[in-house]
Amino acid sequence: MSKQELEVLGQDAAADACCPGLLAAPLAEDQAVELAKVFKALGDPVRLRLLSMIASRAGGEVCVCDLTPAFDLSQPTISHHLKLLKQAGLIDSERRGTWVYYRLLPEMTDKLAGILTRPAGQPLPEAVS
Amino acid sequence: MSKQELEVLGQDAAADACCPGLLAAPLAEDQAVELAKVFKALGDPVRLRLLSMIASRAGGEVCVCDLTPAFDLSQPTISHHLKLLKQAGLIDSERRGTWVYYRLLPEMTDKLAGILTRPAGQPLPEAVS
Repeated sequence: MSKQELEVLGQDAAADACCPGLLAAPLAEDQAVELAKVFKALGDPVRLRLLSMIASRAGGEVCVCDLTPAFDLSQPTISHHLKLLKQAGLIDSERRGTWVYYRLLPEMTDKLAGILTRPAGQPLPEAVS
Repeated sequence: MSKQELEVLGQDAAADACCPGLLAAPLAEDQAVELAKVFKALGDPVRLRLLSMIASRAGGEVCVCDLTPAFDLSQPTISHHLKLLKQAGLIDSERRGTWVYYRLLPEMTDKLAGILTRPAGQPLPEAVS
């Protein structure tokens, strides 16, 4: 996946993922394709833990050197998972000296939260028995 | 996956997915495993479209006979995708006569929206350049 494609995915997925949301109207095919890439990136326990470690860090960024020790996985494996989160537009990274630093892109998690939120005034299905 | 396992997944994932959320604190390993199953179910364009068709239907439920014609896929393939959404706790189903009817389980989408929502008062990372 080229840098340009990554940028397109990051931007368009964020835009497409917006209103009216997954629960308000049937999703168009191209919107579903873009959005599925982001959810697929979240569909792995290691990537979810990495994302939560990055997102919850005071100061807003985490050195990869602080992420790796939390996992019983090799540095290349961790880097691969981080690359998938970055390709999905969920995090960004910056190399400074020896290390790469990661930070959340809250625009994408905001969009996901928004599209999973029930539209106001939508009647509830019957209560779950 | 047995019915009992499905119920456990549906209930525990929903409970675990709750507070304090993915963005507030590092996710525990078992929580990440449960949550990743739900996001993985959403990580497919056909399943996202099925979910949005079910969720946005006035009246709250959809006959499988109304879902299949929207896709260029076989009935068994659609049923397989619906089964994965059901196993993830995102939808429920009921057979009545010839057809199976599907409805959203909004508790799960509510939980996902909640855990993707930034905790109040959390400082924003620097603006994206």
